[in-house]
Amino acid sequence: MSLNGIFQYFVPKDKKFFPLFEQAGNNLIDMAQLLIENVNTTDVEYRKEICRKIEDLEHKGDNITHQIHLELGKNFITPFDREDIHALASSLDDVADFIHGASNRMDLYKLVKATQPMIEIAGLILEATEHVSKAIHELRDLKNIRNITDSCVRINSVENKADYIFDKAVADLFDYEKDAITLIKHKEILSAMEDATDKCEDVANVLESILVKNA
Amino acid sequence: MSLNGIFQYFVPKDKKFFPLFEQAGNNLIDMAQLLIENVNTTDVEYRKEICRKIEDLEHKGDNITHQIHLELGKNFITPFDREDIHALASSLDDVADFIHGASNRMDLYKLVKATQPMIEIAGLILEATEHVSKAIHELRDLKNIRNITDSCVRINSVENKADYIFDKAVADLFDYEKDAITLIKHKEILSAMEDATDKCEDVANVLESILVKNA
Amino acid sequence: MSLNGIFQYFVPKDKKFFPLFEQAGNNLIDMAQLLIENVNTTDVEYRKEICRKIEDLEHKGDNITHQIHLELGKNFITPFDREDIHALASSLDDVADFIHGASNRMDLYKLVKATQPMIEIAGLILEATEHVSKAIHELRDLKNIRNITDSCVRINSVENKADYIFDKAVADLFDYEKDAITLIKHKEILSAMEDATDKCEDVANVLESILVKNA
Repeated sequence: MSLNGIFQYFVPKDKKFFPLFEQAGNNLIDMAQLLIENVNTTDVEYRKEICRKIEDLEHKGDNITHQIHLELGKNFITPFDREDIHALASSLDDVADFIHGASNRMDLYKLVKATQPMIEIAGLILEATEHVSKAIHELRDLKNIRNITDSCVRINSVENKADYIFDKAVADLFDYEKDAITLIKHKEILSAMEDATDKCEDVANVLESILVKNA
Repeated sequence: MSLNGIFQYFVPKDKKFFPLFEQAGNNLIDMAQLLIENVNTTDVEYRKEICRKIEDLEHKGDNITHQIHLELGKNFITPFDREDIHALASSLDDVADFIHGASNRMDLYKLVKATQPMIEIAGLILEATEHVSKAIHELRDLKNIRNITDSCVRINSVENKADYIFDKAVADLFDYEKDAITLIKHKEILSAMEDATDKCEDVANVLESILVKNA
Repeated sequence: MSLNGIFQYFVPKDKKFFPLFEQAGNNLIDMAQLLIENVNTTDVEYRKEICRKIEDLEHKGDNITHQIHLELGKNFITPFDREDIHALASSLDDVADFIHGASNRMDLYKLVKATQPMIEIAGLILEATEHVSKAIHELRDLKNIRNITDSCVRINSVENKADYIFDKAVADLFDYEKDAITLIKHKEILSAMEDATDKCEDVANVLESILVKNA
């Protein structure tokens, strides 16, 4: 597709899909910020409250996804391919699910104090959602294709870091945690968190695929 | 795409792909029913027999997938996009693989008695496959687009329930199961079952993507 | 699409994408061969050296993926759909990530001696990457569509074997490994290896989807 193609696809006129995607992106940042509060508290009751808030935001995200689907049903013209709008909405929804899942496990498994690697990965999840949100806000404007690509590269790099911290943390559990059940518990919480960064990478993949199709 | 587009794509004339997809859907229900028998027996020999039957149905599913591919090779006109036919066939195949995997683990790990959450998730797998099969049967007829969407919503809701039961069951294992190896065993079986409902959600995603493209 | 379509899409004139994909395929074979060295050594220092080499090849793979993206940015005409080029590059990258991950875990978890199932799955990973590479080399030439399909079937069959060995190995761990932490360690290494064959199956899926679209 030519430059013409880009103009055709990324005209900044859409008033329906972009605002919804931007809301979904902002919502992920809010969730990630609450997750950071979660890993920084040792107050079990306060953790429960944070988990409820994260759950509320997850429902909010579901509503946004649902509205995107309703708009797809109502609109003949979309700012990019219909199936890509669906794929982007689904992948954003997945990130929300995994942040919620990680938060939930901390409560369900009665974690008292988050470990250092959990705190670090929670920080990386926030970083990744910020890049996701930034990339989405720049979808509106075709001049920023390079910015979107940059955000995708950064998301990949954040995911690599999370991966590394996860692997190292599990290795340390094998070295120092002598209680197998505690070891599994910590590994499962870390793994849900690491999955959340994987899902951000999936969003980056959908965004790259959209750019590639329309560039 | 206009209403015209829908007619063009969902004309109920196809005699090749729809019957195969319907067979694949029915096959999943048969497998899920056997899985329920599996979680309800404590007779290790009978479990082996059920596992063999599930394996046979998995091979039957592989054959259906293969026939869909053969038809794709032979037919110029398809009821919807060629790559979506491929994606739908693959996602149905994945559900079969995971039901088979869950059943297999019960036998391989020498489970004697399925736990209550296993019984509940097996029931949800059957529910999910019934919705999958229903949605597929309604692909033939474009008047039923709302019905397909409804089935997809229901599949998502079943998956959420399975997710919740899985998380709660693992939390309970951490609370009450003092033998780490038994804990891992149960967690792995539950996890394979929960994955089967995830794969049903992937089918729903493919179906939604097909609808979105053709609506 | 007609035979014409095939000619249009698979003309063996592309000088940019095919060589890069072929490099990516060859790189996977190199990585898999090093993984086999890894499972066959008990020398912890030598293992560290192999891991570093695998990591270097993973970076090499990242560079190839990056070059494919650059070419997509520069070229108006591509040998098949832009999004499929992106999907194929991503899926090859995933295989590299998981071979690297499996190798890394052996080092991080301080494995001394790989078990028989690890050695077997490493062999299957090599087999799978060889089929992947073969299929990719035949993408250039449309006469070989059947050969590509054959490679995909073989990749699926290798993945099934790896799956079976993994399940059996875990069952054996439950039977014979009385130390829960060693059990988890071995299960995690096996699981990363089995995931590498899953990712080869994803490559096969992308290849099948490309064939299906263009046949």
